[in-house]
Amino acid sequence: MRFTLGELAVLVGGEVCGPASLVVTEVAPLETAGPDSVAFADAKFLEKARVSGAGVVLVPQDAPDLGRPVVRVARPRLAFIRVLQAFSPEGSAPVGVHPSAVVGAAVVMGAGVSVQARAVVEDGALLGDRVVLAPGAYIGRDAVVGDDTVIHANATVGPRVRIGRRVVIQSGAVVGSDGFGYEWDGERHVKVPQVGTVLVEDDVEIGANSCIDRATSGVTRIGRGTKIDNLVQVGHNADIGADCLLCGMTGLAGSTTLGRRVTFAGRSASTGHLSVGDGAVVLGDAVVTKDQPAGAVLSGYPAGPHREQLRLEASLRRVPALFKAVAALQKGQPT
Amino acid sequence: MRFTLGELAVLVGGEVCGPASLVVTEVAPLETAGPDSVAFADAKFLEKARVSGAGVVLVPQDAPDLGRPVVRVARPRLAFIRVLQAFSPEGSAPVGVHPSAVVGAAVVMGAGVSVQARAVVEDGALLGDRVVLAPGAYIGRDAVVGDDTVIHANATVGPRVRIGRRVVIQSGAVVGSDGFGYEWDGERHVKVPQVGTVLVEDDVEIGANSCIDRATSGVTRIGRGTKIDNLVQVGHNADIGADCLLCGMTGLAGSTTLGRRVTFAGRSASTGHLSVGDGAVVLGDAVVTKDQPAGAVLSGYPAGPHREQLRLEASLRRVPALFKAVAALQKGQPT
Amino acid sequence: MRFTLGELAVLVGGEVCGPASLVVTEVAPLETAGPDSVAFADAKFLEKARVSGAGVVLVPQDAPDLGRPVVRVARPRLAFIRVLQAFSPEGSAPVGVHPSAVVGAAVVMGAGVSVQARAVVEDGALLGDRVVLAPGAYIGRDAVVGDDTVIHANATVGPRVRIGRRVVIQSGAVVGSDGFGYEWDGERHVKVPQVGTVLVEDDVEIGANSCIDRATSGVTRIGRGTKIDNLVQVGHNADIGADCLLCGMTGLAGSTTLGRRVTFAGRSASTGHLSVGDGAVVLGDAVVTKDQPAGAVLSGYPAGPHREQLRLEASLRRVPALFKAVAALQKGQPT
Repeated sequence: MRFTLGELAVLVGGEVCGPASLVVTEVAPLETAGPDSVAFADAKFLEKARVSGAGVVLVPQDAPDLGRPVVRVARPRLAFIRVLQAFSPEGSAPVGVHPSAVVGAAVVMGAGVSVQARAVVEDGALLGDRVVLAPGAYIGRDAVVGDDTVIHANATVGPRVRIGRRVVIQSGAVVGSDGFGYEWDGERHVKVPQVGTVLVEDDVEIGANSCIDRATSGVTRIGRGTKIDNLVQVGHNADIGADCLLCGMTGLAGSTTLGRRVTFAGRSASTGHLSVGDGAVVLGDAVVTKDQPAGAVLSGYPAGPHREQLRLEASLRRVPALFKAVAALQKGQPT
Repeated sequence: MRFTLGELAVLVGGEVCGPASLVVTEVAPLETAGPDSVAFADAKFLEKARVSGAGVVLVPQDAPDLGRPVVRVARPRLAFIRVLQAFSPEGSAPVGVHPSAVVGAAVVMGAGVSVQARAVVEDGALLGDRVVLAPGAYIGRDAVVGDDTVIHANATVGPRVRIGRRVVIQSGAVVGSDGFGYEWDGERHVKVPQVGTVLVEDDVEIGANSCIDRATSGVTRIGRGTKIDNLVQVGHNADIGADCLLCGMTGLAGSTTLGRRVTFAGRSASTGHLSVGDGAVVLGDAVVTKDQPAGAVLSGYPAGPHREQLRLEASLRRVPALFKAVAALQKGQPT
Repeated sequence: MRFTLGELAVLVGGEVCGPASLVVTEVAPLETAGPDSVAFADAKFLEKARVSGAGVVLVPQDAPDLGRPVVRVARPRLAFIRVLQAFSPEGSAPVGVHPSAVVGAAVVMGAGVSVQARAVVEDGALLGDRVVLAPGAYIGRDAVVGDDTVIHANATVGPRVRIGRRVVIQSGAVVGSDGFGYEWDGERHVKVPQVGTVLVEDDVEIGANSCIDRATSGVTRIGRGTKIDNLVQVGHNADIGADCLLCGMTGLAGSTTLGRRVTFAGRSASTGHLSVGDGAVVLGDAVVTKDQPAGAVLSGYPAGPHREQLRLEASLRRVPALFKAVAALQKGQPT
């Protein structure tokens, strides 16, 4: 793969600053980029861009002259995504059912499906057009997988789960495991049968080794466009709105309801049976324990408004000084 | 599946209040139930039951008249479990060894075993009666799986691991991975061979993508009837008593010993080499760092008695006010 | 397997104290060892060794007479590792490609490779000498696996990932999943293509169900000799130095840079885009949020020097007493 500076500018709809025939052959982060690489810099990283070894840097339209070849674009990060797409090394998946795959009875498959080595599709499942099942992927009985969805190696989709279009499920993820529900009957924990299912809407991504539990009854829903990182747990009967972000190791207990564009940062959590409003942001390691309004920015345990948490934490860090002040007062000495 | 109100009452051993010929065709949570649904309500949710759209609600025997069809039962939640079991959509597993499964030498299988597509059973393993190995399940060399146990898709049981009867292992779980043990010899981390095994007793459930490490030597034990949620880690040489509950993302470091009916709530943890007595409850996100007595209710980091934690937290929240009080004293003004 | 006391002493290079013909047939922890077992005791566990039921105990050279058979060695724990290796029950892997395995085009394999049942190796992959792929292991297109590396059952190695020599990847681990990167374009989260890869250097171990994300561009590196426990997340473009230890459930967000011999204890974390110097120790549950120097010992959230954290925590535990003192001052009474 190779691009001239001029071709890059056309690709991203930007303005060339430098020799249009200059060639780059790879993409790289600003820090490690060499003369054959294209990198990008948002406004706050322009100084890093000036000293970077990159052959070409994508910069904002109003960036000052950096004395080096650049392409000026409206949004450097989005432009870089287009460059990354162009450089993407993945080939197209082989169409057809591999002889080592196992496909059950009454399975309906669309056009251009790729069922790869050792994949298993149980009876009654429905695979839309151009679905890709990588090796070892498992699709349970009567499950539905929408057009253009990719299920990566060794991922598991349980029975009756419905997956939308253009969904990506990374390796090792489990969609449709049983929810965790038991009732003590005086002698033992009796399992509450988990007879519900999971609905994963269009354009969702689910990370490696994440788990989405099926509902006790009804449906656990992952809303359109929501992106879920690795090792995330979503409990039974959760209802996740559209375009949410659940970062790595987030845990949402059962019956958590999220609005649209809610963000849970790394290893944050919800204790379940609560709702979080549109656009709320739960910061890293915070644990939401009760309903939260739209737009809230939350931190701490239990999670509260971040500004209050910051004030409280600042106060707590000064407690040792407070002890000294009180000791001085006790001695009757002014401090 | 359809039940009349009268049939439901017989199923759960309850008392009909309403037209016995009324029909329901599905189960649902109280919040989303419609006229074709049966739901349930504990004493504290009776007001929700009154306004629910459910066709039938299972309620406590002493519930007031809700002006709608109900079945009165001693324990609505247990009764609902029986209804869920009746509505459970899972068919029985196909008996026999699928042609794409791989079964090693000297494997002993009981009656009615279901070894499904792509499952692998290594040499010398023993499968009891009616064991179900879903597609992609792996049973290591000389492992033992007891009667009526179900191993879900893409789950892994390591060599020599012993699994009891009526155990359920969800997809992606790994039972018998190596414990994490290394010794620095001055130049490198030398691996401590993990030559022990795992014993999973009868009626245990292990959640999706959870990991139970084998013992360094001896055995990591999961006691009878214990239920483990998703993404839980149990370290080497842990000894978990009967009927414990380990909720999602709990982490028990090596050589943690739990008594009977100990609960670890969501994402709680033990730092290992300690014991927790019968019936203790470790609340969400708490981290146990030393031995704890039977019946303790623990929270915080490090985990202490929950009542003390609550008092301390209330005190800390008032620290900003304390600063003001001390400042006033310093000015010589009464507050 | 059986060893006499004399043979044990030769094996570990130690000095016999007791009847050289005494026989042991198993290894065990000190607590549960019986007369047929060999156990070990560091200096601080000598009292436990005195009362243990073990047939033989490996003890330090300067241990007092315990009145029982022992082998005196320079480092009992390292000596015990040699004994464990001798008792290790794992046989050698069967050489060759199992008929149910699927090997793509242009795959290059070294001598003595073991590709077991249902393993899949994609086109263009390279397997070094004596590589073991357990059942269900997946090796992506153009990936490289070095000599003597073992990939356990149902583990996944993504395309183009490079794995060094003598690496162990436990079951369910995913190496080379996509990093979590999206950019909001005003209407939706646009995926940042993750075109980079992962480099796992020699002598690394990766635990069960852990996830190592591929770099956005460039490489996510796991340095030589680093050991990673179960359910650990390493984000895209992380750069982990040599001989680090990442204990269970640790989460390192993207672009975390670690020096050599850094330890992250159980469930600790980094928020990413930061570096931690050589030999630093991050204690359990601590969250590193900014650059940290070599040798730091860190705890808390946000992580700070452990000694300061201890002082602060001690101070906070005494806050209720401070309230009483201030109340007394307010009443004008000396306390």
